[in-house]
Amino acid sequence: MPLSADQQAEIDALRSAPQPTLRVVAPGMEQHLYHAKPVLDHGFVRVIDYMGDDAAITQAARVSYGKGTKSVQNDEGLIRYLMRHWHSTPFEMCEIKMHVKLPVFVARQWIRHRTANVNEYSARYSILDREFYIPAPEHINAQSVVNNQGRGGVLEGEEAARVLEILKADSARCYDNYEAMISQDGQDGLARELARMNLPANIYTQWYWKVDLHNLFHFLRLRADAHAQYEIRVYAEKICKVVADWVPFAYRAFEDYRMGGAQLSATALDCVRRMLKGESVTQETSGMSKGEWREFEAIISD
Amino acid sequence: MPLSADQQAEIDALRSAPQPTLRVVAPGMEQHLYHAKPVLDHGFVRVIDYMGDDAAITQAARVSYGKGTKSVQNDEGLIRYLMRHWHSTPFEMCEIKMHVKLPVFVARQWIRHRTANVNEYSARYSILDREFYIPAPEHINAQSVVNNQGRGGVLEGEEAARVLEILKADSARCYDNYEAMISQDGQDGLARELARMNLPANIYTQWYWKVDLHNLFHFLRLRADAHAQYEIRVYAEKICKVVADWVPFAYRAFEDYRMGGAQLSATALDCVRRMLKGESVTQETSGMSKGEWREFEAIISD
Amino acid sequence: MPLSADQQAEIDALRSAPQPTLRVVAPGMEQHLYHAKPVLDHGFVRVIDYMGDDAAITQAARVSYGKGTKSVQNDEGLIRYLMRHWHSTPFEMCEIKMHVKLPVFVARQWIRHRTANVNEYSARYSILDREFYIPAPEHINAQSVVNNQGRGGVLEGEEAARVLEILKADSARCYDNYEAMISQDGQDGLARELARMNLPANIYTQWYWKVDLHNLFHFLRLRADAHAQYEIRVYAEKICKVVADWVPFAYRAFEDYRMGGAQLSATALDCVRRMLKGESVTQETSGMSKGEWREFEAIISD
Amino acid sequence: MPLSADQQAEIDALRSAPQPTLRVVAPGMEQHLYHAKPVLDHGFVRVIDYMGDDAAITQAARVSYGKGTKSVQNDEGLIRYLMRHWHSTPFEMCEIKMHVKLPVFVARQWIRHRTANVNEYSARYSILDREFYIPAPEHINAQSVVNNQGRGGVLEGEEAARVLEILKADSARCYDNYEAMISQDGQDGLARELARMNLPANIYTQWYWKVDLHNLFHFLRLRADAHAQYEIRVYAEKICKVVADWVPFAYRAFEDYRMGGAQLSATALDCVRRMLKGESVTQETSGMSKGEWREFEAIISD
Repeated sequence: MPLSADQQAEIDALRSAPQPTLRVVAPGMEQHLYHAKPVLDHGFVRVIDYMGDDAAITQAARVSYGKGTKSVQNDEGLIRYLMRHWHSTPFEMCEIKMHVKLPVFVARQWIRHRTANVNEYSARYSILDREFYIPAPEHINAQSVVNNQGRGGVLEGEEAARVLEILKADSARCYDNYEAMISQDGQDGLARELARMNLPANIYTQWYWKVDLHNLFHFLRLRADAHAQYEIRVYAEKICKVVADWVPFAYRAFEDYRMGGAQLSATALDCVRRMLKGESVTQETSGMSKGEWREFEAIISD
Repeated sequence: MPLSADQQAEIDALRSAPQPTLRVVAPGMEQHLYHAKPVLDHGFVRVIDYMGDDAAITQAARVSYGKGTKSVQNDEGLIRYLMRHWHSTPFEMCEIKMHVKLPVFVARQWIRHRTANVNEYSARYSILDREFYIPAPEHINAQSVVNNQGRGGVLEGEEAARVLEILKADSARCYDNYEAMISQDGQDGLARELARMNLPANIYTQWYWKVDLHNLFHFLRLRADAHAQYEIRVYAEKICKVVADWVPFAYRAFEDYRMGGAQLSATALDCVRRMLKGESVTQETSGMSKGEWREFEAIISD
Repeated sequence: MPLSADQQAEIDALRSAPQPTLRVVAPGMEQHLYHAKPVLDHGFVRVIDYMGDDAAITQAARVSYGKGTKSVQNDEGLIRYLMRHWHSTPFEMCEIKMHVKLPVFVARQWIRHRTANVNEYSARYSILDREFYIPAPEHINAQSVVNNQGRGGVLEGEEAARVLEILKADSARCYDNYEAMISQDGQDGLARELARMNLPANIYTQWYWKVDLHNLFHFLRLRADAHAQYEIRVYAEKICKVVADWVPFAYRAFEDYRMGGAQLSATALDCVRRMLKGESVTQETSGMSKGEWREFEAIISD
Repeated sequence: MPLSADQQAEIDALRSAPQPTLRVVAPGMEQHLYHAKPVLDHGFVRVIDYMGDDAAITQAARVSYGKGTKSVQNDEGLIRYLMRHWHSTPFEMCEIKMHVKLPVFVARQWIRHRTANVNEYSARYSILDREFYIPAPEHINAQSVVNNQGRGGVLEGEEAARVLEILKADSARCYDNYEAMISQDGQDGLARELARMNLPANIYTQWYWKVDLHNLFHFLRLRADAHAQYEIRVYAEKICKVVADWVPFAYRAFEDYRMGGAQLSATALDCVRRMLKGESVTQETSGMSKGEWREFEAIISD
């Protein structure tokens, strides 16, 4: 269970006490507030706060005195226009703050997105919990043979069992030793800032993460993508669902123009034009390398 | 008047419709929402939205499951500690969005603060209003004779009258010609993106500006400072009052450690220590240049 | 002339004194160093310093101990791969510093690119020169009738003459009055920080601008685009030529994947697929709005 | 040894081949280029490239056409003035790129400095080396009893021996198992992106890190500080020495105003003033909390 009974009780108390505000309220988002949505075996994502809604995007784009909405259709059209033409600043006018619990190796990828605010649980100051990510059997994969930085088929039988056994045993032993080193029972006890170095990268950490909608979309495009590592992708997918309820117009535009869209190079566009005129283009006549051609074919087929 | 009757009516409508939210509400801030606070002759600052309160700072610092507040005293102590030790990330967990109307030459200073989100009224797309900053007589100063980038005493008599006359006449003429150039009455009409180049830097523009509390404090420390240009300082001072109501603990810590505090160099600290031991230190024996010594004396006197 | 004889002499002295360095040298860039490339009537771009070359991109991508180059072909392939897959961080490992002289209304667009370092000539501290951008007759255009934020056909005859006359006369008068106000001849002289407000937005300013290659490409994609305002586009185009000599592999990839490429939405990709299967797709059956369809047709034709 | 013979040979080749450049050369920095300076047991810092020198700071501050130097004294004075008055942008005009090898738990602190460019060695793509940080006996400390996030006295005797034994044994076992899991010898081999989760935080990683001088000073102020964790402080101290040779004026100003200086609050300044007038101020009459008073006393004594 990601949350203790005490933690759940504190969250429930917060959820039962709506207060009046003059700010913009996004009804689709209120339902998600504070709920810890489970991810992986011990992780979660929960929204702590948010600012703005779809109308806040158009309001900023128009630098309006009032709500900024002319009509709902009009608003969706403007949001699509802004997304299509890379006018990113109005999307920066919405903000979201989340509490995330995640394995350290996922956190190390996540933190590479620099335009965000982060407060991480301090392992210099506090003792980490005994919680480690152990993959489900269907997510233990072999090294990919086509993509050097990806995974291939699911491991099976004894090999899979050995991997699971190793991950569990090493996590447990490292944590036992972490506890033994910091213990002040009959000894001074090692400093926490040192002891933490014995903990493997599948231990869970947690942080508050705050980001504007434009930079969140950038994160989601890269991390909800099929090529992202599974363990970060599941976080991104959970967040996608929340964003779809928060700013439905903006999310739909994001899905159409970013997630479901593709960037075609000048060379690729030229091939498309030739093909539409009836020419039969092959990799050899395309001007693309084999790798590019393979990716191009995947885009123009389904 | 900074706002038209229509604009005021739309704002009043927003202010009369509180809605329930599960988010943290800062009561001291709700009263400021949407109100246009006048600055200079036609400018204003008005808060459009905010995220967080004092407790949100400590909640993030502790990566809490619940509200993060242990006790009110405890919270203020933690906030002071964070401010004193330059732990800036928890302050980034609060966010504010404002609508600001300001002269272009002020906007040009303001925009140098890069860690913020901005949507400015587009003079490529829209026609600017005929509104220019004309300083009040008590704010028409001579060039400073001690500080190359500041102003000295107030201009008086005929010289002041001449300045006012020039500013008014040139603004009016430039705007008349701007209108004449873009007019489509009996002519094609110059493109707005070109015509705007004829407008002087005292014309008003407006923007939505969103910033986190840490970066806002940085802005305020520089721009509410006595050495800042008067025309941006008055904006910063208005914002200071809002922030004091929004996050009173954080603002008090900011006043004590930043606005009212001072950075002493190693050399200056050494002088303080010698003086506390009874030595009579002069500029010659201080190790400081004349300029530094003058600033040092101002700090340790009143 | 953008440069005085004294300025040119100082630049020539710098150019005549090569010094040995152990750093990576980009031969294609050395020839551009310090040269002021004229832009518009009084502006220029000149490269002051640079860091890195094409090999520095692959060196960082591989976190290499040495030069990072395996073979030239290999390097270009890797750079194309990085660009295609939005691996932006290796491009951030190259840096360029430029001295730019530009009209204020161009500077106001330019500064919106926040991930860059800027030092602008201070009009609080110094007196601005009497230099104003007056468009060449072939760049005085009417407001566009199809695009609210663009320009249409060239103005002709008397209307064009009137515009030119206004821009010249207002610039001259405003500057005369600026000088009159700050003059200390028989009067105190208005503070520079105030007097500057009388100057129109076509006055020239200058700054040092430093940016990494990834963010520079982002700037160039938006500002060298056909939809950018002419007066900033000419700066971007000058910079494009310099970058092409500095990092030829990266620039070619940028041209292919960014400048010459296009982002197709999911809807647009679906249309392409249907068209390639022989279906005749129209705006009505495309799922796109009229505006999107028009843009789509422009992309897949030439 | 941090470097293999091959790596050293490649570095030596680079160091033996100076090339002419028209760029500014910082002689004090050239001697450091490419040299791997050992840090901790397997780590290092080595400078890969740099841009600018002391004169580049004043050149940017003055937006100069030429070198920007009036006289050497003049330059140092201006640099001190800029530092004292928090004019940070001219310092951003210098840039440094380093290759750093460091334990993962140090990298996790380091990466929190967001205004920098980073390319890290990819453990999704590549296999990490068997190199772990094992502290020297004199750096194995107990948890501090006064500061919750620091370390106290050195551990001794059997307790220290146990800690060392644990760190070595767990590192070795985890790495053995990492190798066993990714091995393709008689099995498919676990994907690297998964296997890495078994590695503890004392394993070494490496990255290219590029940062401007202003942000580097910010990093050094926090990380070369006596309260920083020892394992990151030693990196910061190595970098300090390099910077002192690179930009000696700027570094001296940094030492005086930042490293050796202190920020005094309004309350603390008031105490100083009262003490200088002869009043005997105690914690009780100071208006400070006990913690603040303790820090204040440390500042005004030695």
